[in-house]
Amino acid sequence: MEYRKIKDEDKDEGAAGDDIESLRNKSISAPISNVATLGGDSNDRSKWKRKTIVTLALTILTSSQAILIVWSKRAGKYEYSVTTANFLVETLKCVLSLAALARIWKNEGVTEDNRLSTTLDEVSVYPIPAALYLVKNLLQYYIFAYVDAPGYQILKNLNIISTGVLYQMILKRKLSEIQWAAFILLCAGCTTAQLNPSSDHVLQTPYQGWIMAIVMALLSGFAGVYTEAIIKKRPSRNINVQNFWLYVFGMVFNAVAILIQDFDAVMNKGFFHGYSLITVLMILNHALSGIAVSLVMKYADNIVKVYATSVAMLLTAIVSVFLFGFHLSLAFFLGSTVISVSVYLHSIGKLTRQR
Amino acid sequence: MEYRKIKDEDKDEGAAGDDIESLRNKSISAPISNVATLGGDSNDRSKWKRKTIVTLALTILTSSQAILIVWSKRAGKYEYSVTTANFLVETLKCVLSLAALARIWKNEGVTEDNRLSTTLDEVSVYPIPAALYLVKNLLQYYIFAYVDAPGYQILKNLNIISTGVLYQMILKRKLSEIQWAAFILLCAGCTTAQLNPSSDHVLQTPYQGWIMAIVMALLSGFAGVYTEAIIKKRPSRNINVQNFWLYVFGMVFNAVAILIQDFDAVMNKGFFHGYSLITVLMILNHALSGIAVSLVMKYADNIVKVYATSVAMLLTAIVSVFLFGFHLSLAFFLGSTVISVSVYLHSIGKLTRQR
Repeated sequence: MEYRKIKDEDKDEGAAGDDIESLRNKSISAPISNVATLGGDSNDRSKWKRKTIVTLALTILTSSQAILIVWSKRAGKYEYSVTTANFLVETLKCVLSLAALARIWKNEGVTEDNRLSTTLDEVSVYPIPAALYLVKNLLQYYIFAYVDAPGYQILKNLNIISTGVLYQMILKRKLSEIQWAAFILLCAGCTTAQLNPSSDHVLQTPYQGWIMAIVMALLSGFAGVYTEAIIKKRPSRNINVQNFWLYVFGMVFNAVAILIQDFDAVMNKGFFHGYSLITVLMILNHALSGIAVSLVMKYADNIVKVYATSVAMLLTAIVSVFLFGFHLSLAFFLGSTVISVSVYLHSIGKLTRQR
Repeated sequence: MEYRKIKDEDKDEGAAGDDIESLRNKSISAPISNVATLGGDSNDRSKWKRKTIVTLALTILTSSQAILIVWSKRAGKYEYSVTTANFLVETLKCVLSLAALARIWKNEGVTEDNRLSTTLDEVSVYPIPAALYLVKNLLQYYIFAYVDAPGYQILKNLNIISTGVLYQMILKRKLSEIQWAAFILLCAGCTTAQLNPSSDHVLQTPYQGWIMAIVMALLSGFAGVYTEAIIKKRPSRNINVQNFWLYVFGMVFNAVAILIQDFDAVMNKGFFHGYSLITVLMILNHALSGIAVSLVMKYADNIVKVYATSVAMLLTAIVSVFLFGFHLSLAFFLGSTVISVSVYLHSIGKLTRQR
C-alpha cells in the first residue's frame, strides 16, 4: 500500500519505464493510444530492448549456473565453506556495482540520482531482502535431511506460485485470469519436465520437509517481491546505487553467517580452503546472475524473472544432452510443451488487458 | 465447403440450436445482444441445459466404459469374437433409436422431420463414418503388435490434435488462439496423467506403430468430424432418424467384418461363444456411449466430445483408486492440473470471442 502511494507520486519524473506495466492495470476498454501518450514509440522500443537484453542475460546465466552445478557434482562434493563463497559473491557484486558507478560519474558527473550517499529513510529497507535471502540460503543446505536432490528440485517449483501470490498481494499489480492460468501451467510444466521414475517419492516427503519447502518458497518469493518494491520505489534512482546498498547488507549478513557457521573451519583451514576452478567460476556466475536479477527487477518484474529461470531450466536440459550425454524423457517433452504454451498465454494475457 | 452452404440455407428453420456456435465465428466486436436476437433467453438456457446433460452422460458412460475394460482384463482375456460384439452394439443402438422414434410418433405424429423414409441424397453420406469407424476399430486390434497397451493409451492422445485440426478444416469453425492453446494443453495433460515409469518406451515405438497410430488418429478424427457435419447438415431433422441411418450402416459394415474375420469361429463355436456378464455390460455401455456421442455431435460439437472423454479419463482414475486400489502418481496430479486449466481456458477463449 505504502509502496504504491510513493510510486504514484514518482510518476512524473520516471514513470515512462512503467508504462506497459501500468497499462496492465487499466480496464480492457482503455484505448490503445495511451501507449503513445505515456512513452512515445522510440522510447518504448528502447525500454523493450533493454528489458529483452536483461531477461536473456538472466536466462543464459541461470542456465550456465545449473550446468556448473552438474559439473561440480561430477568433480566431487562441496569441500569449501558455502558461507565464504556466498560472502565473496556479495563482495564481487558490490565491487562490480562500484565500478559501473565510477564509469557513470566520470561520464555524466554526480547527480541526485547516482550519488552513493543516501538518507536513513531510503537505506533502512535494504537489509530486509539480504536477511531473507540469507535465511533461505541457509535453509537450502538443511532441507536435504528430509528430501533428496531431485525431490528438492520438484519442491522448488512452489516458488513459482508463491512469487505470483506475493507479487499480486504486495506490489498490487493484477495478473489477468489468463496470466494466472499461465502461471499455474508454468509450475505444472516445470515439475513435469523434471519428472523421473523416482519422482513419486516426493509425495512421501515428511511433513518437516513440506514445511521447510513452503517456508523457503515464501521467503524466496517475498525477498524477490520486496526487492522489486525497493528498486521500483524510486524509478529515477540509478540501479547501481540501489544494488550497492543491497549488496553491502548482503556482505554484512554473510559475514555474520561465517562467524556463526564456519568460524572454526575458516580459522583452522583458511578462508579459501577447498576452492577450485569450478568454485571460482560458480562465484563469478552467481555474482553476474545476481546483478541480472536486479536489472530484471528494475526494468521488468518478478514474473519475467520466474519465466526466465524456467526457460533456463529447459535450456540446461538441452545443453546437458550435448555436454553430459543426458537423455530427454517423454515427461521433459510434455513439460516443455506446457511451459511453451504458458509463455505464449502470458503474452496473450497481457495483450488482452491492453485492448 | 458444401456443408457450410447447406447449413447457411437451413438457418431460418432451425438455427437457434446453433446460435452460440455461430457467434463464435463472429468478430470480437459483435454486440452481445445478438444472442437474444437469435434465440431468446429461456431458449438459450434450455439449449445450454440439453448440451450439459448430453455432455455429462457421455463423460460418465466413457468413464464407466474404461472401468469395465479394467474389470474385464482382471477377469481374463477377450474370449469372444470382437466383430460379433460390435455388430450387437450397432443393432442395440438401432433398436433404441427406433424405440425413441416410436414414442415420438405416438406423441407428436409423423412429420417431415421425424419420418424414417429418406431420399438417396440425404442417406448417401451415412455409410462413410460407419466405414471409417470400422477400419479404425479393426486397426485397434492390430496396433498391439507394435505398441504395448500403456503405450497405445499414450499414442491415442494424438486423436485430440487430429480432431482439432480436422474440425477447423472440414467444419470451417475457427477455434480462437486461446482455444488452440487449450487444445494442445489438453493433449499434453492427458499424456502426462497417463505417464508411468515405462512410458519412455513409447519414444522407441517402431515406425509402423507410429504410422498406424497417426492413421488411426486421422480416421477417428475424420469420422467424428464427418458425423458432426452429417448430423448438423439439417438441424431440424430428428436425431433419432439420423442415428437410425448411421447405425443401420454400422450393422451392415460389422456384418461384413464378421464374414471376413470371424466366419469360422462363429460357425464352429456359435455367435455368442465366450460371452459373459461383463461382455453384455460392455455391449450395453458401448451402445449408450455411442448414442451419447451422437447427441453431443447434434447439440454440442466434437471439441466438447474430446473434453468430455478427457475428463472421463480423470474420473476413471479417481474411481479406480476406490474400486481397484490404484495409486495416483505425481504425474497424474500434474496432468489433471493441466487438463483443468485447459477446460478453463477453452471456456475463457469462447467468452473472448463473444465479446
